[in-house]
Amino acid sequence: MATRSSIMDTNSYRGDEDSLIDKKTLELIKRREKFMSGSYRLFYRKPINLVRGEGEYLYDDAGVKYLDMYNNVASIGHCHPAVVEAVTKQMQLLNTHTRYLHETIVDYSEKILAKMPSEVDKVMFMCTGSEANDLALRVAQEYTGGKGIIVSQEAYHGTSALTSGCSPALGTEQPILPYVRLLKTPDFYRVGGTDEKFIAWYCGELQKNIDDLKEKGYGFACFLADSIFSSDGVHPNPKGFVKAAVDVVHKNGGVFIADEVQPGFVRTGDAFWGFARHGIVPDLVTMGKPMGNGIPVSGLAARHEVLEAFSDKLPYFNTFGGNPVAMAAAQAVLKVIEEEKLQEHTKAVGANLLAALKEVQKKHSDVVGDVRGAGLFIGFELVSDIEKKTPDQKKALDLIELLRDNQVLTSVCGPHGNVLKIRPTLAFADKDIDWVCSALDKCLTILG
Amino acid sequence: MATRSSIMDTNSYRGDEDSLIDKKTLELIKRREKFMSGSYRLFYRKPINLVRGEGEYLYDDAGVKYLDMYNNVASIGHCHPAVVEAVTKQMQLLNTHTRYLHETIVDYSEKILAKMPSEVDKVMFMCTGSEANDLALRVAQEYTGGKGIIVSQEAYHGTSALTSGCSPALGTEQPILPYVRLLKTPDFYRVGGTDEKFIAWYCGELQKNIDDLKEKGYGFACFLADSIFSSDGVHPNPKGFVKAAVDVVHKNGGVFIADEVQPGFVRTGDAFWGFARHGIVPDLVTMGKPMGNGIPVSGLAARHEVLEAFSDKLPYFNTFGGNPVAMAAAQAVLKVIEEEKLQEHTKAVGANLLAALKEVQKKHSDVVGDVRGAGLFIGFELVSDIEKKTPDQKKALDLIELLRDNQVLTSVCGPHGNVLKIRPTLAFADKDIDWVCSALDKCLTILG
Repeated sequence: MATRSSIMDTNSYRGDEDSLIDKKTLELIKRREKFMSGSYRLFYRKPINLVRGEGEYLYDDAGVKYLDMYNNVASIGHCHPAVVEAVTKQMQLLNTHTRYLHETIVDYSEKILAKMPSEVDKVMFMCTGSEANDLALRVAQEYTGGKGIIVSQEAYHGTSALTSGCSPALGTEQPILPYVRLLKTPDFYRVGGTDEKFIAWYCGELQKNIDDLKEKGYGFACFLADSIFSSDGVHPNPKGFVKAAVDVVHKNGGVFIADEVQPGFVRTGDAFWGFARHGIVPDLVTMGKPMGNGIPVSGLAARHEVLEAFSDKLPYFNTFGGNPVAMAAAQAVLKVIEEEKLQEHTKAVGANLLAALKEVQKKHSDVVGDVRGAGLFIGFELVSDIEKKTPDQKKALDLIELLRDNQVLTSVCGPHGNVLKIRPTLAFADKDIDWVCSALDKCLTILG
Repeated sequence: MATRSSIMDTNSYRGDEDSLIDKKTLELIKRREKFMSGSYRLFYRKPINLVRGEGEYLYDDAGVKYLDMYNNVASIGHCHPAVVEAVTKQMQLLNTHTRYLHETIVDYSEKILAKMPSEVDKVMFMCTGSEANDLALRVAQEYTGGKGIIVSQEAYHGTSALTSGCSPALGTEQPILPYVRLLKTPDFYRVGGTDEKFIAWYCGELQKNIDDLKEKGYGFACFLADSIFSSDGVHPNPKGFVKAAVDVVHKNGGVFIADEVQPGFVRTGDAFWGFARHGIVPDLVTMGKPMGNGIPVSGLAARHEVLEAFSDKLPYFNTFGGNPVAMAAAQAVLKVIEEEKLQEHTKAVGANLLAALKEVQKKHSDVVGDVRGAGLFIGFELVSDIEKKTPDQKKALDLIELLRDNQVLTSVCGPHGNVLKIRPTLAFADKDIDWVCSALDKCLTILG
């Protein structure tokens, strides 16, 4: 089983570069620290005060324009007018809850289920990915009668008591629940070998975890995974490898929860959902971040026979979940994805970006160990020894700071915090590729 | 310790009056059932398809106008233009998250903490009351080192694994966590006696629960309560009784979590917060429903020394929590409460409504056992035997159906489901009192 080596929050303000921060920003930081909990983290040694967003760009209070290579919430582009309009219109009309009938939630339910395999035929709505995963885990436990949960080594699945207990990415101070097992990161770059051997290795590791849960008397409820393995460092390949793991899950009587908070809503280009890219039919699907382009909305889709283990017994009411305004936002996002052909766009521009980043890698082949991705979700891995593939967290952190100074926003991920998480809004276009690649080239050259 | 006799969801569609429902509505119900989880419930035997809201009124798809005597989310009035404007404006500008600096969240943090006792000096933001309570419970456990939680007999505190395990109101199928104890409902109407005796009884019951948690080895973390005891049937009196309970909590090394999702934001008229009405200084305060007038936003305020037990160890990031749009909504709500003097309004109109409802009680003194409330949160209790105070759930359920037909929307609460929860938007005005009281009088007369 995997050991923990969490790096969450290494990209954060620590107060050691205050002399480089202007007075107004520093005052805002101090006021923030005075009133807001110490649990909050700010990105960057020199935090940014953003005031405006448009498409793939963000602007700070001094008018500096940044290329946003990180944010997947404003997925269809910052301040997309279609979402602003839909939300405004609905807010002017009505905003109640699911105890009353409302057409929009029914229409949206039908539309989002039409994007799923036919077996996944029921849906529910919440406000956050945490809430969706929290509920999915309870459903999986009710259905299987088992308690045991398997997540990836560096997974992040939420902030609730249950989901944070399944989120090693929160750091070593975060206790992992006794009935949760951590499955090794599917790091094809390091594990290597043929696709077949890699898949056999991964499935073997999964089986070991399942066996351990059963031996310890917890039983096996589910494997909960984001199929792009976002916080594990972005691991999309070989395409289809997660399917083999899901077969192991089913063979052992468990259910697979596809956490689509990261790879969903055409992010990976190959399909609407990350799981579909791997050819999987999941039992439960959780969705969140990009769903409402920033308006809080999340969902849980399910095979009815799995969900009924819960829904036949228990009511579920989420006050804001699925309210008319949230549904209007979600509906607008779906419409834009279709009308602007964002899946095709993401696939095409994602491939071009990947190719361009590989050119950067060639130029800096002594420090860039691997570049991999699907659609507009790319991992760009820094190493200190190219042969040994030694993770270079320091260089990655220095690089994102320098990129910030060069008006490109991104952050790091992976168990060693050495992988740039390149995940722009889907408004990112071919014309932006030069900006990000030139900045990367320049910054890598400076860092040496 | 209290036994469980939950009634949640007794106000719901069951399909037995379909012949009375028009074809279009029935089709929408069927489509909803096809796509949405069986965990969803609809209010009323004849569900309502609402399409528009304004101030204290709601309108269905046939244009029928209802007086909303139930909804506290659109607290400052349905579709309040100040919130629509603030949200629209911010959506056009920017909607990111708390990893970047943003002035609105800092400004709002300062303003909301200014409403608290000076000891409560830190704040965090989430999206739902469930998330706020889930986190508050974890903070309480970290701070005290104890695991034991006490909630009220019919409490509802959320939908997450942890909070639903503290929510007996979800029904007898909902397992209560082994380290949770249920404290008897503070039902002054039935317990009776002098204020002093009532308080002594309540504190004694609380102490018994604390002792039991300690004896069983769980230790004592907290008492989590909504000081209006909303799902317990609305129990505001005697004013100050919760203060005595909180003293017991502190004497036993626990913390008090004031769940202000119901009584907060001037609902009770006497104070901005429900806990303030009782003269309490809480350790943790959770807020939700009315905070953004329907835009999902919630918060946790805390004494810094309590919160630090958590925040010194663990980061907390809630993707949508405290985002600029949510904060703009929350800021607008606060501004409206102040500018429209809603606390004074709530106190005055609440007193007038209570007096008018007591007149209805006089006229129907054989079936209305008790009417009690604070501000615009009133419980109206139906009994079958006025001497024995026997709860009459059937009459209460028939009454809310009949009220629905007479264009007044409300629902029931309490361990026996016999208490009308009268909780209109704060836009409710003196001119509306006759509407609700006439309807009540008429419907009670019909029911006999």
